[in-house]
Amino acid sequence: MRNFAVSMAYNGAAYHGFQRQDNGITIQQVVEETASRLLGEDVAIIGCSRTDAGVHARQFVFNFKTDSAIPCEGFIRAMNALLPEDIAILACEEAPLDFHARYCCEGKRYLYRIYTSEVRDVFYRDTALHYPYTLDIKSMREAAELLVGRHDFAAFCRAESLKLVKTTVRTVFDISVEQSDNITDIKISGDGFLHNMVRIIVGTLIYISEGKRTKEDIVCALDTGDREKAGKTLPACGLYLDEVYYRKREY
Amino acid sequence: MRNFAVSMAYNGAAYHGFQRQDNGITIQQVVEETASRLLGEDVAIIGCSRTDAGVHARQFVFNFKTDSAIPCEGFIRAMNALLPEDIAILACEEAPLDFHARYCCEGKRYLYRIYTSEVRDVFYRDTALHYPYTLDIKSMREAAELLVGRHDFAAFCRAESLKLVKTTVRTVFDISVEQSDNITDIKISGDGFLHNMVRIIVGTLIYISEGKRTKEDIVCALDTGDREKAGKTLPACGLYLDEVYYRKREY
Repeated sequence: MRNFAVSMAYNGAAYHGFQRQDNGITIQQVVEETASRLLGEDVAIIGCSRTDAGVHARQFVFNFKTDSAIPCEGFIRAMNALLPEDIAILACEEAPLDFHARYCCEGKRYLYRIYTSEVRDVFYRDTALHYPYTLDIKSMREAAELLVGRHDFAAFCRAESLKLVKTTVRTVFDISVEQSDNITDIKISGDGFLHNMVRIIVGTLIYISEGKRTKEDIVCALDTGDREKAGKTLPACGLYLDEVYYRKREY
Repeated sequence: MRNFAVSMAYNGAAYHGFQRQDNGITIQQVVEETASRLLGEDVAIIGCSRTDAGVHARQFVFNFKTDSAIPCEGFIRAMNALLPEDIAILACEEAPLDFHARYCCEGKRYLYRIYTSEVRDVFYRDTALHYPYTLDIKSMREAAELLVGRHDFAAFCRAESLKLVKTTVRTVFDISVEQSDNITDIKISGDGFLHNMVRIIVGTLIYISEGKRTKEDIVCALDTGDREKAGKTLPACGLYLDEVYYRKREY
């Protein structure tokens, strides 16, 4: 028995998220079916995270147990030949048998990409939010600073998902806001994320830019958990799981 | 009667090229139908060029005659609301009645985009050529220099299309080869282009990088028109009409 730790990227535009479900095709289903076909055995993968419908990944880690003797390099090559063009295997290593892509994950970084120009960019239609106004980057950076650290992010969680978690306290390691030409990239790293947390945080930063929320509202949102003090939930198209962190040499 | 000169961008992945045809949906058909619906009259547009199936445009200019009183700004806004997400109107001006997007065009620049990495990029699947090896940029630039100027480009034309043109002599103004991270952008500007000319030129530069063609082959291709001395025709996905040139203040 071997335990494969695999890193992949996907364009989520055509998928109903990562996790298997009955009413739509998912990344998990496509990867499991492809790996099962390749290895001639039933493959069940464990993902580092869930991603919602339409969300992308520049790095997503999963693991699975296999009796196959296939070399890692051969697995990468064969999977990339068999998978659809919008999913790609980036790396594969043999990990200790107790490596678990979700439980061993120590943190993640997300990217939210915004295209700011009056007219939409036809090449970013599924991979960035089109925002037809100017962003106040300085104010957004100042507001973002307030969110860094260990806080109760209940106000930045999808209401229906609040009851599914034991705690809404999370640590945000860093938030960067970088603008280059018409692209604004907001990267948020942390030890864990609530449902829609990144999309609500970036929605709040846009409200800050628009003057619809103040820095005081953010402080209040963290203190009280009042969802109304935060901004709206942005669409999935701009969101990418960007990097997944594991302890060094863990696998 | 007014003559509208319109600039647009499109992601060509889902279209059978610009020009109307019976066996597939085209950019021209979608734009004409949308404008006809908006203006309440039959609209027939004249494009600056044809583009093949799957080819993109960062700038494509067309003109059309209209009896409508719609302001140019209103036309841009309404068209962008009605058009599919992969076509966008960038600009619209009222031009002199004799402005003709094709006849008045004095030159064009094309971009060919190559993604060089062992594994494909899931975000460029329709908008760049995936080339899993390293490119020899220096050799490509040296070879490109040989193509700049007024030459007979018969060797760089789709064979079936040779009989459709009066002359195969064209002037290439400039060829640039720029690499940044995993993206190599090759831009070719000239007074006119033969069918597949850009895709064959870039295919030849890749053959130069691979050592499958020499600079002498390029000189020979220009001298003799021998298609075999040039490289292969690259796929449409990496090709963009990048900019269209008109005499200043013509419209």
